[in-house]
Amino acid sequence: MNLKDYIASIENYPQEGVTFRDITPLMSDGKAFAYSVNKMTNYAKELNVDIIVGPESRGFIFGCPVATNLGIGFVPVRKPNKLPRETVSYAYDLEYGSNELHMHKDAIKPGQRVLVVDDLLATGGTIEATIKLVEKLGGVVAGCAFLIELEDLKGRDLITSENILTLIKY
Amino acid sequence: MNLKDYIASIENYPQEGVTFRDITPLMSDGKAFAYSVNKMTNYAKELNVDIIVGPESRGFIFGCPVATNLGIGFVPVRKPNKLPRETVSYAYDLEYGSNELHMHKDAIKPGQRVLVVDDLLATGGTIEATIKLVEKLGGVVAGCAFLIELEDLKGRDLITSENILTLIKY
Repeated sequence: MNLKDYIASIENYPQEGVTFRDITPLMSDGKAFAYSVNKMTNYAKELNVDIIVGPESRGFIFGCPVATNLGIGFVPVRKPNKLPRETVSYAYDLEYGSNELHMHKDAIKPGQRVLVVDDLLATGGTIEATIKLVEKLGGVVAGCAFLIELEDLKGRDLITSENILTLIKY
Repeated sequence: MNLKDYIASIENYPQEGVTFRDITPLMSDGKAFAYSVNKMTNYAKELNVDIIVGPESRGFIFGCPVATNLGIGFVPVRKPNKLPRETVSYAYDLEYGSNELHMHKDAIKPGQRVLVVDDLLATGGTIEATIKLVEKLGGVVAGCAFLIELEDLKGRDLITSENILTLIKY
């Protein structure tokens, strides 16, 4: 199955000169969506992970099905003021301004093996922040899985684990 | 399995007098998460639906695994400026201010049977908006499934379909 057939490329969105890779056609095709999730599920199984972690909100789209396929837990990484209990947080810079991500302090037990899942690996800022949060709690990032990688942006340079699965590359 | 055991109740969050029902302990327990998703999956099967629709972002948490379990598509309903192609939208009032939700115009084909999935049925505003968007595109809301229902808030009165599954009631 050629997954690129299910990605819509939108020129000059959200700003001039950027090509936005829209994953909604893939999600709305039951076969392509399940195929992608199954690839990630098999990867999680190979890496023998204990729990899946994914950043809001598109990390939920692939990470939650992988977790329920394996009967393991899913931990959401969220923007400020979304998680009601005590959190750990990590702030990082964007081209304009900055972002801060949070995870519940009891979300990961020390030594747990984690697969980080998101839809897109671009500059890697979100994923680096997510990895830092996992490591703050003593978790071990066994690997990362993404539907799409934008290779020119070199996001994989920010990932300390050698285990990176990307199903579509541009 | 008593799913209530996996919900953390946070008093006075996000504001005085409100009890927030935190679903993250359920999500991080692999058995409880898969059990909840399987209940919804069976419901979707009974209703013979063609596609799952869920509002950002917690609707993705349960809706996406139900879709991939059945090998059918998932359609995200999102806040403004998140979907890159042509959308239909629906605005609704909140206690303070208003909200607007969007869905891609080609997301649902006329006559498709839809299960709407979200984590929480409270006042029902989000779900009513989601149903309106499905119906604007000619879809048929075969039913709705939620992890939690806050019964006092009477959100189910806004749902036109008689088929409503709620796994936990407060």
